[in-house]
Amino acid sequence: MREKNTFRRGGPSRRGDDFRRTEPLRQTEAESTGSVVAGRNAVLELLKSGRSVDKIYIQTGAREGSVTVIVAEAAKRGVPAVDADRRKLDMLCGGVAHQGVAALASEVEYVGLADILRIAEERGEAPFIVVADSINDPHNLGALIRSACCAGAHGIVIPKRRAVQVTPAVIKSSAGAVEHIAVARVSNLAAAIDELKEKNVWIYAVEADGEPYYDKDFSTGGCAFVLGSEGEGVSRLLRDKADFIVAIPMYGGVGSLNVSAAASVVIFEAARQRHK
Amino acid sequence: MREKNTFRRGGPSRRGDDFRRTEPLRQTEAESTGSVVAGRNAVLELLKSGRSVDKIYIQTGAREGSVTVIVAEAAKRGVPAVDADRRKLDMLCGGVAHQGVAALASEVEYVGLADILRIAEERGEAPFIVVADSINDPHNLGALIRSACCAGAHGIVIPKRRAVQVTPAVIKSSAGAVEHIAVARVSNLAAAIDELKEKNVWIYAVEADGEPYYDKDFSTGGCAFVLGSEGEGVSRLLRDKADFIVAIPMYGGVGSLNVSAAASVVIFEAARQRHK
Repeated sequence: MREKNTFRRGGPSRRGDDFRRTEPLRQTEAESTGSVVAGRNAVLELLKSGRSVDKIYIQTGAREGSVTVIVAEAAKRGVPAVDADRRKLDMLCGGVAHQGVAALASEVEYVGLADILRIAEERGEAPFIVVADSINDPHNLGALIRSACCAGAHGIVIPKRRAVQVTPAVIKSSAGAVEHIAVARVSNLAAAIDELKEKNVWIYAVEADGEPYYDKDFSTGGCAFVLGSEGEGVSRLLRDKADFIVAIPMYGGVGSLNVSAAASVVIFEAARQRHK
Repeated sequence: MREKNTFRRGGPSRRGDDFRRTEPLRQTEAESTGSVVAGRNAVLELLKSGRSVDKIYIQTGAREGSVTVIVAEAAKRGVPAVDADRRKLDMLCGGVAHQGVAALASEVEYVGLADILRIAEERGEAPFIVVADSINDPHNLGALIRSACCAGAHGIVIPKRRAVQVTPAVIKSSAGAVEHIAVARVSNLAAAIDELKEKNVWIYAVEADGEPYYDKDFSTGGCAFVLGSEGEGVSRLLRDKADFIVAIPMYGGVGSLNVSAAASVVIFEAARQRHK
């Protein structure tokens, strides 16, 4: 039986809400081994989370430096830490850079949009959500999840189709943040936006041609930030549904920021205003 | 003879200042082929820059979509665009994802610190500089260069040793921004910081334990932002030399932002204040 997830946020206290739905990650591509977590930060955050971990693998001879912290954390959780040679780790991780450390864990579970709204309610905060519109690069999605988590967002929404899912490469790029923030996977992003609007959440599409983000008031009411894929931006349908289009004024010779950098600039301004 | 670089910033007008020193990129590792630029954005930005380009390679059958824009730009510059099969491109780019497009160009040239200060002076602005302290991940350095360029920084300073140099992977990750911002490579970062302080540039180290960045006034006088490597942060020596330690308050369960995300949050706040 799979252990239910519990989330830790902002300190040593453990959240008791087992809100994750039991919808496992579909394995549709080679990379999506789902239950393999690779990389030092990612494995450490996994061990600190409530997710069930079968065992961790340490590359032979690598039990030093930051790896000792990981091994200690595994011991505390009663998770066996076994040695493995590099080739075995390479095979297990299917191309993701593992830094000599990997774990076998229960699959990442997605939540529903209502669960994210419930997390906000339980924290007594107006909803603060990031919507990833068709992001295909695992590094970008991972970095986006990491930034959203650091900014104190209640969750991130991704589409079920035409976008990268939470694969091991995403988990690695998130530096383990995926263990600490709720990820909702929805069939229809437009319907999810409508649902958020019904709950009085303001929708901000982050685009190149909007009003400066710093002129907006993010401190009153809920807010959801829609980020588009690099190159294509936010899809027309979601853009039309947004209450506001916000932009980051650019002052250099290159036209656009990386999507996770752009998201960070805007959502940390929101975090600043919300905690004033 | 190598064509001198000219920089374009913020529009079609071409900057006439040929400020780059003729110190070519040292090729110390396999990846540092130096004169190969891989990836669609990177090659497009290269073609738009003043850097000398020998030829571009297009993967056979890939002349469609955004590649047609690249081919047109090459034609405008009189740069031959030749077909190459995928294996040739793979070999040429040495593992960097090329997206079917690569270029052979003159080597990236570094500038000196004084050149960056001169760029600020020529623009009639107080210096706005990013200092990368021992960043080893090419994706992080590339993303940092991209963000610094978009924020309108006058240059970025990297150390000659114990850090990644401007390799093809960095150029690719910068989405071509490296063509539009001056990169100074110095033997001694501490001496560079001292030099900046003598020129009345305020030094801000971005760390986990500083004062909130948004309480600082970045609008009066020059500023340099020192970012450290992930894991280790800013080195003790540079930290001690900084005038201020600034932090990004975190509200989630994961302790730290990716270095380029953190840099973006702080330097775009500086950009906002400087352009008010």
